[in-house]
Amino acid sequence: MPVGTLGPVKGVTPDQLAATGTQIQLANTYHLMLRPGERVVAELGGLQRMTGWGRPMLTDSGGYQVFSLATLRKISDEGVEFRSHVDGALVHLTPERSIEIQNHLGADILMPLDECPGLPAADEVIAAAVDRTIHWAQRCRDAHTRSDQALYGIVQGGLNPAQRRRCLAALLPMGFDGFAIGGLAVGEAPPEMWRLLDDFADDLPADRPRYVMGIGTPADLLHAVDAGVDQFDCVLPTRNGRKGYAFTWDGVVRLRNAAHRSDSSPIDAGCACVCCRGFSRGYLRHLLSVGEVLGGILISLHNLHFYQDFTRSMREAIERGQWPAFRDRTLARVAAVSAVDADEASHASPIEE
Amino acid sequence: MPVGTLGPVKGVTPDQLAATGTQIQLANTYHLMLRPGERVVAELGGLQRMTGWGRPMLTDSGGYQVFSLATLRKISDEGVEFRSHVDGALVHLTPERSIEIQNHLGADILMPLDECPGLPAADEVIAAAVDRTIHWAQRCRDAHTRSDQALYGIVQGGLNPAQRRRCLAALLPMGFDGFAIGGLAVGEAPPEMWRLLDDFADDLPADRPRYVMGIGTPADLLHAVDAGVDQFDCVLPTRNGRKGYAFTWDGVVRLRNAAHRSDSSPIDAGCACVCCRGFSRGYLRHLLSVGEVLGGILISLHNLHFYQDFTRSMREAIERGQWPAFRDRTLARVAAVSAVDADEASHASPIEE
Repeated sequence: MPVGTLGPVKGVTPDQLAATGTQIQLANTYHLMLRPGERVVAELGGLQRMTGWGRPMLTDSGGYQVFSLATLRKISDEGVEFRSHVDGALVHLTPERSIEIQNHLGADILMPLDECPGLPAADEVIAAAVDRTIHWAQRCRDAHTRSDQALYGIVQGGLNPAQRRRCLAALLPMGFDGFAIGGLAVGEAPPEMWRLLDDFADDLPADRPRYVMGIGTPADLLHAVDAGVDQFDCVLPTRNGRKGYAFTWDGVVRLRNAAHRSDSSPIDAGCACVCCRGFSRGYLRHLLSVGEVLGGILISLHNLHFYQDFTRSMREAIERGQWPAFRDRTLARVAAVSAVDADEASHASPIEE
Repeated sequence: MPVGTLGPVKGVTPDQLAATGTQIQLANTYHLMLRPGERVVAELGGLQRMTGWGRPMLTDSGGYQVFSLATLRKISDEGVEFRSHVDGALVHLTPERSIEIQNHLGADILMPLDECPGLPAADEVIAAAVDRTIHWAQRCRDAHTRSDQALYGIVQGGLNPAQRRRCLAALLPMGFDGFAIGGLAVGEAPPEMWRLLDDFADDLPADRPRYVMGIGTPADLLHAVDAGVDQFDCVLPTRNGRKGYAFTWDGVVRLRNAAHRSDSSPIDAGCACVCCRGFSRGYLRHLLSVGEVLGGILISLHNLHFYQDFTRSMREAIERGQWPAFRDRTLARVAAVSAVDADEASHASPIEE
């Protein structure tokens, strides 16, 4: 799921997004509750109509952005209190309020408010976050009465499989439409995350979507799918695209490099995206150099197309019974992509898409 | 002709530009000679191929931007010397060099280097600019030997029809493929410009395109077409679009206004552009409010579509023999558009598109 923080994927029209193969888009409750406000979104017909996307959408609960603003928050069992990054206004967010906002936004899949501690975290911090996440999940489940919007449960528990299982066991009887693993990609090394997914993801019900929030690199996706995960969202294709990093099956192309100055070849001659069909590396480098937004938009479109192509290839390998060979071969090819992620694509700016 | 200062119209793909009805696009020699440099553009296949536009293009001479940087320049009969606004490097531009650069850029229509004084200007300043413009025009004509690129002549002479005629008389024997009126929209009031066009434009040869550079509002275009002009370029549709001003047949819509907050109607219900078919005023206002570039892009696309629709309507009124009635009716309708131009859309930032 590409991320459209403020509604649209930055600079991208719905037609352009659909042409990347995207089926479902994420939008951020935190940003939209502040501007333009969920009632305005409802008056404009709801997210799908307002944005012109018209296809499935998912909204997060707003919690991740709130918890990323650590100095600004007060947390209690009741909810969380924070100051708007836009105008400093004091805002309360409770489980009930998060659902109310998401009901107004009108996405197809809603997420409950959870507590998402950064990593590393002490055992008691993780345990307390699990307790609160369970408590808030029940309140969200009770508050959500609309049958036209799915509600997932979010499992917390850090890198501790026992805490993850305790959280999941409490969520299961509540009757969620899908299950998400939250609290990853929040400071741990990728291999630590991969190990947790290996140990735990397959505990999630097999008859519901399994969603890992906020990941990741192609290598992350390979590990997660190998562990049994179905669904992802991530800003990497678009955020890195705007910075001039293009994903390919053989690693990342850094388009700001001087080597591309007069290069008339596309990012990837084998790619069928609008960027690779029409524009050279040299032109993209020029656009980035002069600060012309079209450069970041075109590379975003390439990266989104790459991610959709990548996930489609994983699905097809599974359907053909060729997953292990595909996984091993592809992990070796995309190794360079992970290296760039560690350098350049941290989750350090949660306010920004 | 929409303006693509650095190659593309800001944030707009070639497909999106073509969908506005655009037939020919302008690009700025001054900006492209500095970045990425005309040789890089040539190595990337020339402007049309590099940008992916693939349709007709016109490049200006670079002179207008140089002359707009008054404190940075030295002018002599040989040429002009200025410091790059990018890195401060000292750059020489002569008539021969302007043609050489434009030959490398590869547009379909080239413009000669001219001297373009701001208005108001003393008679002797205007006369000297005409002298130098004539001298440089001959040197450009001599320097341009390629038959696959048209070269227009530029007439200077300020608001003085006699100076304009003196300039034109000297240019006519040089054999240009079209004629442009330069040195307007540089400080004079619109009615002064309209009067000069009324007095002079019809002196231009009737068998060649007649081009007024750098205008204008819908009212400007009506006056210019009434005076016999065929061709225009202007940043208004895109620059004003990015600021949130939308052109319509009945005046300008200021999309940042709070009145549009929950307005689910499009800019113009009668408009067939991609923006009006898919997006509400309320959504556009939201995008502008949060600084999301898609807002400016969508309004730019609407404005470009409006301008193409506007010029198409003028052509059709002439072909149907209904020009005078169309002109009078439309001047009354678009009066409000001109008012906004005076407030908001000055030519005060020549470095920017």
